[in-house]
Amino acid sequence: MSSVAEMTSPLGRELVLTRLMDVPREKIYRCWTEPELLKQWFAPRPFTTPVAELDVRPGGATYIVMRSPEGQDMPMRGVYLEVVPNERLVFTDAFTRAWEPSEKPFFTGILTLAEEAGRTRYTARARHWTREDCEAHEKMGFHEGWGQCAEQLATLAAAL
Amino acid sequence: MSSVAEMTSPLGRELVLTRLMDVPREKIYRCWTEPELLKQWFAPRPFTTPVAELDVRPGGATYIVMRSPEGQDMPMRGVYLEVVPNERLVFTDAFTRAWEPSEKPFFTGILTLAEEAGRTRYTARARHWTREDCEAHEKMGFHEGWGQCAEQLATLAAAL
Repeated sequence: MSSVAEMTSPLGRELVLTRLMDVPREKIYRCWTEPELLKQWFAPRPFTTPVAELDVRPGGATYIVMRSPEGQDMPMRGVYLEVVPNERLVFTDAFTRAWEPSEKPFFTGILTLAEEAGRTRYTARARHWTREDCEAHEKMGFHEGWGQCAEQLATLAAAL
Repeated sequence: MSSVAEMTSPLGRELVLTRLMDVPREKIYRCWTEPELLKQWFAPRPFTTPVAELDVRPGGATYIVMRSPEGQDMPMRGVYLEVVPNERLVFTDAFTRAWEPSEKPFFTGILTLAEEAGRTRYTARARHWTREDCEAHEKMGFHEGWGQCAEQLATLAAAL
């Protein structure tokens, strides 16, 4: 993990986290798409991820549960919008499954993995429907949380 | 057009229009996916559809402009979520293109075309993110408007 850049988009509804990881992108992609791997890095420790159901295809559903140190569960449902193995994943919480609108469309996530001088440029974007939700996400600790998870992910991927 | 059924889903966020059309589903699908055909039926007359740009593939964008008799334009942008030729189209206004969240996610449309005793069962669903939007859509004249358009569509498709 040798480069850090964090920003908010000019439009004010996107948060971006990017890292240069010294791991082949295939291993990073596996950590995002294999449930038993995702469970090991997806929540910022000491939070955990006891449940991860991932139907990795466009229109496929995700069901992920994060658990706080106090034992409180945070279930999250979503749908993949785009799947390009080893390169790109797009998912959203606007649907709970194809195509059931959720109670609250909060954000769409875009993960891109690109080769860069033998390493992997890891970019995770969160695009929100409202500026208010974007600001709330940032205040919830987007950069710290997703940044910590990216480190957990890079460590796990490097060990595969 | 020999059968009519209109309903609101139990969940209260879906509007459904269905018709049995005496036209092969391939022709109905063409009317939904070829811009020069869509322009001829998409708006309830005397409204017109001067612009229809349709990138018919998952993630492809739509840009459609309806025009009132007084000349007021209503531009609409959306994205296809699922495309199964001659069978099924899913699209939403939650994105203006892949994958830019729109200002206001209002509904997701699901069109299904099924063979039924030599005719085509035409079903158009509008699923909303909120109950309020669903009720507003119904009061805007969903069943009358989509119903009139379905008749325009059936007439056009039969003449192809």
